[in-house]
Amino acid sequence: MTAAASIAPAQAGAANDKARPLGAAPASAGATHRADFPGIEPGWHYLDTAATAQKPQAVIDAMTRDYGKRYATVHRGVYARSADMTTAYEAARAKIAAFIGATDANELVFTRGATESINLVAHQYPGVKGGGRRVLVSQLEHHSNIVPWQLAGWQVDVCPLTANGCIDLDAAEAMLTPDHSMVAFAHISNVLGSVLDCRRAAALAHAVGAKLLLDGCQAVPRTRVGVAALDCDFYAFSGHKLYGPTGIGALWGRAELLESMPPLHGGGAMIDQVSFAGTTYAPPPARFEAGTPHITGALGLAAAIDYVETIGIDSIEAHERDLTKQARDALRSINSVRLYGPEDALGIVAFNVEGVHGHDVGTILDEGGVAIRAGHLCAQPLMEWLQADSVCRASFGVYSGPDDIAALVAGLERVRKLFG
Amino acid sequence: MTAAASIAPAQAGAANDKARPLGAAPASAGATHRADFPGIEPGWHYLDTAATAQKPQAVIDAMTRDYGKRYATVHRGVYARSADMTTAYEAARAKIAAFIGATDANELVFTRGATESINLVAHQYPGVKGGGRRVLVSQLEHHSNIVPWQLAGWQVDVCPLTANGCIDLDAAEAMLTPDHSMVAFAHISNVLGSVLDCRRAAALAHAVGAKLLLDGCQAVPRTRVGVAALDCDFYAFSGHKLYGPTGIGALWGRAELLESMPPLHGGGAMIDQVSFAGTTYAPPPARFEAGTPHITGALGLAAAIDYVETIGIDSIEAHERDLTKQARDALRSINSVRLYGPEDALGIVAFNVEGVHGHDVGTILDEGGVAIRAGHLCAQPLMEWLQADSVCRASFGVYSGPDDIAALVAGLERVRKLFG
Repeated sequence: MTAAASIAPAQAGAANDKARPLGAAPASAGATHRADFPGIEPGWHYLDTAATAQKPQAVIDAMTRDYGKRYATVHRGVYARSADMTTAYEAARAKIAAFIGATDANELVFTRGATESINLVAHQYPGVKGGGRRVLVSQLEHHSNIVPWQLAGWQVDVCPLTANGCIDLDAAEAMLTPDHSMVAFAHISNVLGSVLDCRRAAALAHAVGAKLLLDGCQAVPRTRVGVAALDCDFYAFSGHKLYGPTGIGALWGRAELLESMPPLHGGGAMIDQVSFAGTTYAPPPARFEAGTPHITGALGLAAAIDYVETIGIDSIEAHERDLTKQARDALRSINSVRLYGPEDALGIVAFNVEGVHGHDVGTILDEGGVAIRAGHLCAQPLMEWLQADSVCRASFGVYSGPDDIAALVAGLERVRKLFG
Repeated sequence: MTAAASIAPAQAGAANDKARPLGAAPASAGATHRADFPGIEPGWHYLDTAATAQKPQAVIDAMTRDYGKRYATVHRGVYARSADMTTAYEAARAKIAAFIGATDANELVFTRGATESINLVAHQYPGVKGGGRRVLVSQLEHHSNIVPWQLAGWQVDVCPLTANGCIDLDAAEAMLTPDHSMVAFAHISNVLGSVLDCRRAAALAHAVGAKLLLDGCQAVPRTRVGVAALDCDFYAFSGHKLYGPTGIGALWGRAELLESMPPLHGGGAMIDQVSFAGTTYAPPPARFEAGTPHITGALGLAAAIDYVETIGIDSIEAHERDLTKQARDALRSINSVRLYGPEDALGIVAFNVEGVHGHDVGTILDEGGVAIRAGHLCAQPLMEWLQADSVCRASFGVYSGPDDIAALVAGLERVRKLFG
């Protein structure tokens, strides 16, 4: 953890002026921030942050305030508290947009989460070149970046992976044609932790006139995202994986692309004029936000970003990079463990114990207070490629530390003894 | 308020054994429960519950617990806390289903709110009789029960209103044909407070082979809803109007109807098997719940129902019926006020001050600490029928009392003086 601690100040950019380095001492890195999380009880080793992150007290306190003395609806009330809530809600939108490097808050649509964000594009993006709706996804995508395209009737092509489990961009280059109007890839794989070379993916997509959608669920909580720098066209992510509330997420899209998309859901707030003769719609982002929004969700996500920024996202990345390396090294030393994914995976480690089903591994680890995920991890096509029914996954957050990895290793020793 | 207080015990049914009557003393009815709501500050008269309800401390405490020591994802974890959270999440579904009189929890789909619920039916219900998609809505519907049908390409017929602002079921009977596959009406109007005769609407719909969808947003918080007793086919409502969190709501539908609907959104949790050759889907309700759900929203809504049940929904109805009558009587005595809606409106009173725009009325009332809603109230076709650009609306909740009505009347006197 000295690596994270020493790297953080050097990497700190303008947004990190107030950053606290993660881990003052080698052994207590995760513990430094662990006290901020009431959900992390002493002796419990939570290694399922890629499924959902625990919440810092600051976010819980924000929810308490927002459901209490601050509570009112938005966009509608003629009284002061509702006007104040509207200001806070739109300020949250601006903060969340800025966090992913977007300059125009109106390019950020609130959704329930990344799944809804991707569905919105799959259903409503008209495609280009005379309505062609052909998308290139990869073999490692989460179901939420496969099934929406299938449901919405796109022709789905599948980009293969490199031997170590990254999206093979050489293959993508060879596969892309002028018929493709979309490339949709995970920024970081939810199973393998593989990090995409987004800029190259964008260049490949744009070279054939396609757009690039990135599933940023696993990237936003652990690496600096700049939609302009990445040169992507759509970016989808969930709040609950970013230390925020459940039920909130976002779709960022270039203004002209959002403008080209008709509304999917009708209702209050997304209209201009409603009549039975014909209804007209508001511009984005309101066009895609029918009904009373998840007000406290948006505010809670903004509070989560405030929390993340007190640590600094670069410091978080260094911390998780270090833990990932520690975990891979430790797991590699266990003979019965098969490790998946690239050496430079970020924040996520997938593995199997030979001859033992992932669910059994997870259950035995749980008895020792170690919480991992096991199963197909919403990535059945990737399981096929891995030739595995299921995998085990350990994933990290700001509260994770070397003691969590030690507990994981001790638990796996116990699995080996039981199944010896 | 003596009416409410004395009626409550007599009306209390089995579900109300633990009910506390609303208002022990005539003048302090609302105040009895007001202390439960940290959002209602002394001297503030919140009359916008039809837009969104304030939250009882019990709901806020539940959220604090659910984001803290209890927090984990659902349906996926192999560790105990996630299994416990899954149990709690599904118990919330069962509680919410039971609250609206449904016996099968699998008939309850979690959505972001009523708007999404209605959109889901409009987009995915295949219609009957060879795919006929013709719907009868009414002139008083909220935009959320008009625009979804338009967007999804239904032929929309409009049922007129009676002179006092109720859906004219005689007219509906005359208009319905075997070509209609859906009737979609508000259970209680969000503007006028008019209460639908749901059983007759159901009989009329069923007589031509159509289904009945009820928009229950304004009914669920203030009257006993029994989907079986009402004989409806779909029931949509939002949690945040029922003293629960934002971003959560539900669609109840008969099992065979939900089964007939294909999924709208793809992603995790809604699948059976995913492959690039073809994907198969889970049965309802999971089929319609792609992605990590709004876990704490579901739990918070269950906590809100617990709170409502400690008072008793019949007691709440009596309380709001009494306040509505008081408000109508008081407003009628002001010469410049024009009152809308039927005499037996429930919980909601719409009016205008002659010669003064609703937004001005709202702003002046706000200066006196009275929060109402003014505008088209997401019901532009109804505004056309009322021949009004906008209306003012006062609406009640368990924390409302006669003092709120007195403050409203005092504020309107001030409006009259200012605009003399």
